Amino acid sequence: MVKYIKVLQGRICRRLESLDGHKFSRKIWKRESGGGGTSKYLQNGNIFEKAGVNISVVHGLLDHKLASLVHSDSDRFRACGLSMILHPVSPRIPTIHLNVRYFELEDGESWYGGVIDLTPYYPHPEDFIFFHQVIFEACERVKKNSYSEFKLNCDRYFYLPHRGEMRGVGGIFFDKLHADNQIHFELIKGIGQSFFDSYIPIVRKREGESFSQQDKKFQLIRRARYVEFNLIYDQGTKFGLGSGGSSESVLISLPPEAHFISYWQPDSGSPYARMLEYYKPQDWIYFTVKENY
Amino acid sequence: MVKYIKVLQGRICRRLESLDGHKFSRKIWKRESGGGGTSKYLQNGNIFEKAGVNISVVHGLLDHKLASLVHSDSDRFRACGLSMILHPVSPRIPTIHLNVRYFELEDGESWYGGVIDLTPYYPHPEDFIFFHQVIFEACERVKKNSYSEFKLNCDRYFYLPHRGEMRGVGGIFFDKLHADNQIHFELIKGIGQSFFDSYIPIVRKREGESFSQQDKKFQLIRRARYVEFNLIYDQGTKFGLGSGGSSESVLISLPPEAHFISYWQPDSGSPYARMLEYYKPQDWIYFTVKENY
Repeated sequence: MVKYIKVLQGRICRRLESLDGHKFSRKIWKRESGGGGTSKYLQNGNIFEKAGVNISVVHGLLDHKLASLVHSDSDRFRACGLSMILHPVSPRIPTIHLNVRYFELEDGESWYGGVIDLTPYYPHPEDFIFFHQVIFEACERVKKNSYSEFKLNCDRYFYLPHRGEMRGVGGIFFDKLHADNQIHFELIKGIGQSFFDSYIPIVRKREGESFSQQDKKFQLIRRARYVEFNLIYDQGTKFGLGSGGSSESVLISLPPEAHFISYWQPDSGSPYARMLEYYKPQDWIYFTVKENY
Repeated sequence: MVKYIKVLQGRICRRLESLDGHKFSRKIWKRESGGGGTSKYLQNGNIFEKAGVNISVVHGLLDHKLASLVHSDSDRFRACGLSMILHPVSPRIPTIHLNVRYFELEDGESWYGGVIDLTPYYPHPEDFIFFHQVIFEACERVKKNSYSEFKLNCDRYFYLPHRGEMRGVGGIFFDKLHADNQIHFELIKGIGQSFFDSYIPIVRKREGESFSQQDKKFQLIRRARYVEFNLIYDQGTKFGLGSGGSSESVLISLPPEAHFISYWQPDSGSPYARMLEYYKPQDWIYFTVKENY
């Protein structure tokens, strides 16, 4: 897994650099109580306003609070993972998040977790359908009937109860899949590959599209919801900040700019009012996408 | 206390309207499980980019999670409070936060809490000294030797452990002061009055000062830390979002715009590098402020 995430980090960064034209910077950090990581980030790019592709390989003792976050009584762990988050300049290109991780406790239990989810800011339902179809196929190829469970997990996880809405249009989320089963590592590799197959075509389709100041404003308002989710609810952020990792590396997930406007409502009939309807769980794979990605 | 916060809300809003030239809007909300509140807010004003002055009067049952937040086994409560947060346009004018509250449990225990703290974005140490001197006097007038304890509470509370820095330059914070002691209500009134005596003179002194784009950029970066604090650590925000209040009303505290820039560092010798030195606990009341406020 350590080797896999290192290779994946390199592949992702090279692909994004060739799209964006800017190079990633790199920060290496050590964790006092064991291990460390390599954060690669790009800010103020041509396509990506902020991009972070981080890997970490850590080990040590879980304190009581962290142990309860991973629902465990054991207190020695080893973990590694890759986290990626891309915040594009253009509101016509969605934000994407990818995470694959491995976690091992001293008593021998070990498992994989993985997430890929999309947060768009403009009502292009064909993009959301395409995204879900690609990850549907990535799941079903490895494990029959796995997508619907993982998709439901994702809808439930990226949810803001105080708003009654999802962060984006979901994706898939699995956790605690036992690492002694080779199929589960295949799922990890499937989710990694699905980023290239689903997101890159959407970027290429949308990068030339012009957008209005209203589009940008809506993106900035929705990015504030992204911040709310990540700082109030996200378990990865809590674990990262609480486990002595690099807080800059953890918080690279936050959008570069966000507008916290109170009591905001879209004009009825606007693309933004339509977009709000998509931040609700729905079935994506029974549609047919005719367009070329 | 209910009467006091209603009068205080009116007084604050009138004072701010006369400074800003814009009027507050009002939202009344009801809480399903008992009570409600009145939120007054102003966005895109001349002086205040976002201002919220909220009162709430609520009652009901504490669920297990909320009971642990207030460290109680009892499960029926009544509470009321006023929360104010002002985010000025100009980075030369600090953000200010004021909260006074009353909490009562079924078994008869009841107490007051209060906070006033300042978050500046430009190194005007004379303003920070003036602010602390006013609140020092407000405390000492009512209760001898109370300031230093309340000031220490505040330094400890408005602290971002993952950054190793304070949110601003502190102020005072007290909680669980028994409401059967009349002196504690006098402290509440003192903290309310101290807002007018400390903050308004700072606004009037700084409102005419011009500022640079660099000043504004630093303010936007520091406002992101404000968001981090409020969403990750603030107990009032957790209680507000978890107790079925109005989430828009709770989140009015968030700055209108924030920049989450990763690995940002100020140029050495810049005003921003100097300002960072002030986000550390320090003694303010042994200075003399010569300037006129």
